[in-house]
Amino acid sequence: MSGNTFGRLFTVTTFGESHGPALGAVVDGCPPGLALSEADLQGDLDRRRPGTSRHTSQRRETDSVRILSGVFDGRTTGAPIGLLIENVDQRSRDYAKIREQFRPGHADYTYWQKYGIRDYRGGGRSSARETALRVAAGGIARKYLAERLGVRIRGWLAQLGPIELALDDWEAVDANPFFCGEPERVPELEAYMDRLRKEGDSIGAAVGVLARGVPPGLGEPVFDRLDADLAHGLMSINAVKGVEIGAGFASVAQKGTEHRDEITPEGFLSNNAGGTLGGISTGQDVVARIALKPTSSIRLPGRSVNVRGEPTEVVTTGRHDPCVGIRATPIAEAMMALVLMDHFLRHRAQNADVDSGTPVIPAEPGR
Amino acid sequence: MSGNTFGRLFTVTTFGESHGPALGAVVDGCPPGLALSEADLQGDLDRRRPGTSRHTSQRRETDSVRILSGVFDGRTTGAPIGLLIENVDQRSRDYAKIREQFRPGHADYTYWQKYGIRDYRGGGRSSARETALRVAAGGIARKYLAERLGVRIRGWLAQLGPIELALDDWEAVDANPFFCGEPERVPELEAYMDRLRKEGDSIGAAVGVLARGVPPGLGEPVFDRLDADLAHGLMSINAVKGVEIGAGFASVAQKGTEHRDEITPEGFLSNNAGGTLGGISTGQDVVARIALKPTSSIRLPGRSVNVRGEPTEVVTTGRHDPCVGIRATPIAEAMMALVLMDHFLRHRAQNADVDSGTPVIPAEPGR
Amino acid sequence: MSGNTFGRLFTVTTFGESHGPALGAVVDGCPPGLALSEADLQGDLDRRRPGTSRHTSQRRETDSVRILSGVFDGRTTGAPIGLLIENVDQRSRDYAKIREQFRPGHADYTYWQKYGIRDYRGGGRSSARETALRVAAGGIARKYLAERLGVRIRGWLAQLGPIELALDDWEAVDANPFFCGEPERVPELEAYMDRLRKEGDSIGAAVGVLARGVPPGLGEPVFDRLDADLAHGLMSINAVKGVEIGAGFASVAQKGTEHRDEITPEGFLSNNAGGTLGGISTGQDVVARIALKPTSSIRLPGRSVNVRGEPTEVVTTGRHDPCVGIRATPIAEAMMALVLMDHFLRHRAQNADVDSGTPVIPAEPGR
Amino acid sequence: MSGNTFGRLFTVTTFGESHGPALGAVVDGCPPGLALSEADLQGDLDRRRPGTSRHTSQRRETDSVRILSGVFDGRTTGAPIGLLIENVDQRSRDYAKIREQFRPGHADYTYWQKYGIRDYRGGGRSSARETALRVAAGGIARKYLAERLGVRIRGWLAQLGPIELALDDWEAVDANPFFCGEPERVPELEAYMDRLRKEGDSIGAAVGVLARGVPPGLGEPVFDRLDADLAHGLMSINAVKGVEIGAGFASVAQKGTEHRDEITPEGFLSNNAGGTLGGISTGQDVVARIALKPTSSIRLPGRSVNVRGEPTEVVTTGRHDPCVGIRATPIAEAMMALVLMDHFLRHRAQNADVDSGTPVIPAEPGR
Repeated sequence: MSGNTFGRLFTVTTFGESHGPALGAVVDGCPPGLALSEADLQGDLDRRRPGTSRHTSQRRETDSVRILSGVFDGRTTGAPIGLLIENVDQRSRDYAKIREQFRPGHADYTYWQKYGIRDYRGGGRSSARETALRVAAGGIARKYLAERLGVRIRGWLAQLGPIELALDDWEAVDANPFFCGEPERVPELEAYMDRLRKEGDSIGAAVGVLARGVPPGLGEPVFDRLDADLAHGLMSINAVKGVEIGAGFASVAQKGTEHRDEITPEGFLSNNAGGTLGGISTGQDVVARIALKPTSSIRLPGRSVNVRGEPTEVVTTGRHDPCVGIRATPIAEAMMALVLMDHFLRHRAQNADVDSGTPVIPAEPGR
Repeated sequence: MSGNTFGRLFTVTTFGESHGPALGAVVDGCPPGLALSEADLQGDLDRRRPGTSRHTSQRRETDSVRILSGVFDGRTTGAPIGLLIENVDQRSRDYAKIREQFRPGHADYTYWQKYGIRDYRGGGRSSARETALRVAAGGIARKYLAERLGVRIRGWLAQLGPIELALDDWEAVDANPFFCGEPERVPELEAYMDRLRKEGDSIGAAVGVLARGVPPGLGEPVFDRLDADLAHGLMSINAVKGVEIGAGFASVAQKGTEHRDEITPEGFLSNNAGGTLGGISTGQDVVARIALKPTSSIRLPGRSVNVRGEPTEVVTTGRHDPCVGIRATPIAEAMMALVLMDHFLRHRAQNADVDSGTPVIPAEPGR
Repeated sequence: MSGNTFGRLFTVTTFGESHGPALGAVVDGCPPGLALSEADLQGDLDRRRPGTSRHTSQRRETDSVRILSGVFDGRTTGAPIGLLIENVDQRSRDYAKIREQFRPGHADYTYWQKYGIRDYRGGGRSSARETALRVAAGGIARKYLAERLGVRIRGWLAQLGPIELALDDWEAVDANPFFCGEPERVPELEAYMDRLRKEGDSIGAAVGVLARGVPPGLGEPVFDRLDADLAHGLMSINAVKGVEIGAGFASVAQKGTEHRDEITPEGFLSNNAGGTLGGISTGQDVVARIALKPTSSIRLPGRSVNVRGEPTEVVTTGRHDPCVGIRATPIAEAMMALVLMDHFLRHRAQNADVDSGTPVIPAEPGR
Repeated sequence: MSGNTFGRLFTVTTFGESHGPALGAVVDGCPPGLALSEADLQGDLDRRRPGTSRHTSQRRETDSVRILSGVFDGRTTGAPIGLLIENVDQRSRDYAKIREQFRPGHADYTYWQKYGIRDYRGGGRSSARETALRVAAGGIARKYLAERLGVRIRGWLAQLGPIELALDDWEAVDANPFFCGEPERVPELEAYMDRLRKEGDSIGAAVGVLARGVPPGLGEPVFDRLDADLAHGLMSINAVKGVEIGAGFASVAQKGTEHRDEITPEGFLSNNAGGTLGGISTGQDVVARIALKPTSSIRLPGRSVNVRGEPTEVVTTGRHDPCVGIRATPIAEAMMALVLMDHFLRHRAQNADVDSGTPVIPAEPGR
């Protein structure tokens, strides 16, 4: 059973390979009546797009998305929304060498072993190019959540290798190529990246993602908790090796008196929970953090084997991101949007009868 | 859309509340012909059961599981397997106070807000008592994986508050009440827990879980990667706030030359990947680590509000685990087993035609 | 991938064999706040129960259902509802003969071929005894539909062998053991059945089922149309060989001018559509009709083979229904209820924003 | 929850409207290694295509399908297969009138009521044009089933209004525009259709569909029986009002001695079951029959109302099939192929361990 569909009620099915004619997605379950055009999706696609600064891949992908269905007279109709991005910058190159090689740290070997056949051109289906469609689909969810529920979603670079970064300035994030929320530290990041590029090496990163304005009640215990589905969605992003909610791994060394978020009539006094209790949103910010590994596509040679099990040396040339984590920021936002949207629909399916009224606990004291 | 079913092809649906007459599960999709009896499941249930040492809850639950269907003449038939555990130790007590209170750090508020009604007795559906059924269901998966594929699964306590613990001795884990893989450090843990109990506080923990002998090829890109489904399953365990695969959050500060697991004809030279590449198992150990928060059920008073939004003080008495992470070890093993079993069936549904033969890369050099 | 779950948002998972210790079901997705007790479900179970007249099987099953979870203080909580029926009338008998036989017209052979193992006692999982749980689960859906939406569901015996029957008197149906809507013809049916029993043969039947008060808008094109899901649910009942919606097979010989249901401001002028257009409910009565084959469990000998392919003669003794169609009436009602309930939740998940107001077309002119 | 995906393991998700830029589908779960090109799918598309005889719609749709992904070097890779058909013959016309009308017998009213918005151009999403993608997707399933399992699927026109037709000549079916298996009766059909066209009316039809060579064991009790999923798939075809398996509604008047298919060591002696027992394939021909209503798109005026509930008269001009049942034949074949393919994968997921060997009962005595 293949796994190219995400979500249960608001579903996204993606298809396409990095060097095929096109990539696409079908978004099913979008409520009717939402104003939607390609321009609404293009913004986030452009943020994810490579080639926008010298610190990301220099490939030229235009990533122009077309809406093929599900929208009429500028509004969604309730029918499935077909999205298409044609591939334009497929450099014609000699793949003879890598077709028999398993690049270390890549999916080459596992695809070969699983399917017995592999589209080796640019990673094929395992290429992060697929995430462009997630960003497009996530844009639809995001628009609905913003317009109908007032939910705002924001990702940021939380760590670049050894450099930890806070989210001081929500607005600054989009004004620099690192999605950095401490704008004054951008030169530090640039210097780090320049050094790295000279070495020919790559580096890991952490990305934070936060949703504000999420109503209490989203999440479906016991297995499809909001945090569990977030973990699923975020871990499904290429290169992600870890997911935390709220205090995350810091909880391990916390005591109960420290971790539990006490409550007053004005609201919660802290947010170690990251906006979920028992797998259901509390109304506080939903906060997650993901760890991204350094890309294995580097020009420093690495040992590997070929399809016959013979030793070989792998050197990756070409236009790769030295830190894939940077461009993961809009993808993490998209997955957050998709999970929240799906859970909003799941929640109201079962619980629309409940008169929730004003939540008992204000989400955000002092805001 | 409720979320009480886990898995796609090997599905587990649980039901039941901590203070209802019984809890149960339906396991659907188990291959026919597997030898199975209640005794096969009772062992793991006893490992999870409270009351086995002074360091866990002193509740007396017998957790005797009955198989109601799906097994005939000692073998599974392919029909759904009904499992039932009757509740026996439900202390009759006065719930008048907590019925209107939202305990901080608990699901009380979110269940109330979501469903408009709440079974407040002992946490109801949000109680970790539900995980007993996961352990029972996981036992079926575990038996199949062991007998048919030679997969062995092992969890261990990786960190207790500030105390980090290695898995030195795989066999020692079950011989002490902490699931500790460094048996000589058990007294240190005991002293820590005794101190904690005196304080009346609780502490977080990290649990590791590892599967050895997993064949290459399991995992369904792009959304249902093996690591993504593991993240889903593990994050759905009560109190879990973070999930890592392989190097996890340590990847953030790693360089590409360090992180990528180089390959020789004798096998992989390291396992930063944690046994998955591109979301598909490599044949190496599948390794995950989870962070568990400290329980909020402590006797030190905490501020909260009641259902009318009025301030109240919450003191939890009763028989609670000061470190819920300890007993989470068999639950993490169960979720690992369920994810692997589900993915084994998913894989062979689509790929049974592939003649995979001997994997090109030996999983475990030197073993 | 096993198929023991029905529905997407209001799901029913059944388990259990005719001669195991118990059968059960888990109903997940029920909205919270519905008043519910065992007594609400027992009525329909008693209608399905054998042994209530000389025209159905003389087995004595009490079919007492227990609610194990999901209900608190007399109301559903949104948690999964566990249902259990213990088996009490399992006659201890010698199954030595049938364990190696494939009874013609039964699932014996196909279960054997599919699973390689078979619980031969009383049909095991393929026994219609499983449908008791569908009736119980359907009772929950039915209660919600009636109380919240005003939907009433009614099944009736539409044909017994050659005898066609109308639904003249909705109330009379439950007052006779045939679910016959023409009460004055009950003696005719009794005479027919007595003759049949003397012959030792069995007979087919058709059952009609109708839902009144269904709001317009239920059904999910293009695959999960309301009629398509009804066809799925009804065809999944033991012994069903055909499903019609509205005019059904009579449509084949109809002309467009005759079939299309014209519309006036007072409502639709006919209901050849059976209450659905484009797979979505119109607000008219949703009407279906199913064909049930005669049971193959008859005492007249039939030719067959055993597990080794050797010829054998099969004679079925014991307590069997000469017309399984009769008792199928409450089962058909239950499946109708389950399909409508599931689609009600599916519809509101996506379309709760739509201000549908008063339907443009009154459903029922003159009512 | 939208319903634009069919199947569980071999899934087809379609999108697109009759007058949008394109229609498409994603086929997920196809086993890797299948030789596949657009030419393999075009044949069935051409059989479904309108404009090929004067007895079907004169619209000119080229229905050229493109494969956008999932195929590499002429073979499927296990990745999702994206299919696209661009719309070319969208006559620019004045839809002003029908945009406010509800055509009787059409989905106009129900889409309006459900979604609050409607793409009225040519039926939008409810147009049978969507079925072109089912035919394309079904072609993939069909090729796999034929090459790997030897399954052959054949549909035929079983009844045209009052004219019943047998399947005498399997090969003749594709040699006439009616999919008629009694070639000598084609002139009779032509005369009937010519008369009908002159009247301006339309007529219903029945289509049969048969799969030969299906291995025993396919089907997932208790809900996802092979026949139940066939009923779902076939009833989801536009205009279908009834589905029968095997003897179908004729079973109602059959006695048990007549209906049960007796068995000899040489095979089954009859096939009233239509190739399934207990919802699982027996190895015999799987046989279904569907009833299709006459199209409501006729030029004879009909009464209806508009979106404001005011009376209006509807006359449909344009290029419509007077008997939509004729072109439904390849669609029914496609749905049969999709159901069988899905069930083949579902079966082997759970039961690949079963050593089924040669089936005990030969499927086809005398063949």
